[in-house]
Amino acid sequence: MAEAPKDIEALIEIMARLPGLGPRSARRAVLHLIKKRGQLMRPLAETMTRVAETARECLNCGNIGTADLCPICADDRRANGQICVVEDVADLWAMERGQAFAGRYHVLGGTLSALDDISPEDLRIPRLIDRVTGETVTEVVLALNATVDGQTTAHYIADALTGMGVAVTSLAQGVPIGGELDYLDDGTISAALRARKPV
Amino acid sequence: MAEAPKDIEALIEIMARLPGLGPRSARRAVLHLIKKRGQLMRPLAETMTRVAETARECLNCGNIGTADLCPICADDRRANGQICVVEDVADLWAMERGQAFAGRYHVLGGTLSALDDISPEDLRIPRLIDRVTGETVTEVVLALNATVDGQTTAHYIADALTGMGVAVTSLAQGVPIGGELDYLDDGTISAALRARKPV
Repeated sequence: MAEAPKDIEALIEIMARLPGLGPRSARRAVLHLIKKRGQLMRPLAETMTRVAETARECLNCGNIGTADLCPICADDRRANGQICVVEDVADLWAMERGQAFAGRYHVLGGTLSALDDISPEDLRIPRLIDRVTGETVTEVVLALNATVDGQTTAHYIADALTGMGVAVTSLAQGVPIGGELDYLDDGTISAALRARKPV
Repeated sequence: MAEAPKDIEALIEIMARLPGLGPRSARRAVLHLIKKRGQLMRPLAETMTRVAETARECLNCGNIGTADLCPICADDRRANGQICVVEDVADLWAMERGQAFAGRYHVLGGTLSALDDISPEDLRIPRLIDRVTGETVTEVVLALNATVDGQTTAHYIADALTGMGVAVTSLAQGVPIGGELDYLDDGTISAALRARKPV
């Protein structure tokens, strides 16, 4: 590596810090980029510079956009009284891909965690309570991950919202569409059985 | 995804074209970058812009550098008469990490392949023959991958160099350092047995 130019070494070192990439895959990616300087590396560098300048968090919900309000918070048609609480922007995008939710979002920015010393104030939980108080909210849908921390956070939020006159719901748990029972974990199967519905 | 700003969507789309990344990991990487705009995304964009401007292939050997001659070709101490032939710059870097080779390199830029219609002229094979004719070369070390295409290319080069007064050698094949026999494929074991040495 001593023979790779300094900038290229620096580039590999930064790329290796991206999630999902390590030193070896960063090296491969950088070589690929250098080979395709014109078609790939220049557009990537330009787009990245632009995004680094313009991307910002929505002051209302924490989604990523280019203005004080993200496109969803700025869209009046999404003001249907529903707020979907997600951990992360990636989860918001996943919900949007599902095209089943027509309300607005609230991105917590993580989950409560005693181990990592993350308290409600470190997340956007106070802001959520402000929104429920201030906006006309009828339902808060908790779309948190089905992990221990996710569910702890869901319970905490549900507790915090009791008595505020909003319905608090959470995503159904059960067999995924296209899922094969044989490949499902025991927890999912028993949750699906407990939540069974008449056909 | 319709709700992610256009530039961010474009960034994800370009990142997903890097080797080792797909749409999902590109999305994760981009969100991570946006979260760490200051520490990670801006330096990455700047370094990438710089590398896109300066990186170029060495006119002599095909290595990546920032001048007409790469640091190795520009270094007179490396003119020991040995040329190590590798498929790719990544392989050159791997050889350099091994710190066992003190000569210069020749990067082919791929392997011969009848399937992909890659002929000697598509690689830097003519240039290698020029170098062997022009420079004072005593040995050509073939460090090509132990794949079918790699070995075909090695044979082709060895044939092309016969009668030119250079020794043509190739990397030894055998048990990797730290390798466990039980996990090695049959081909490696039989190659190592055939090449066995007195202790």
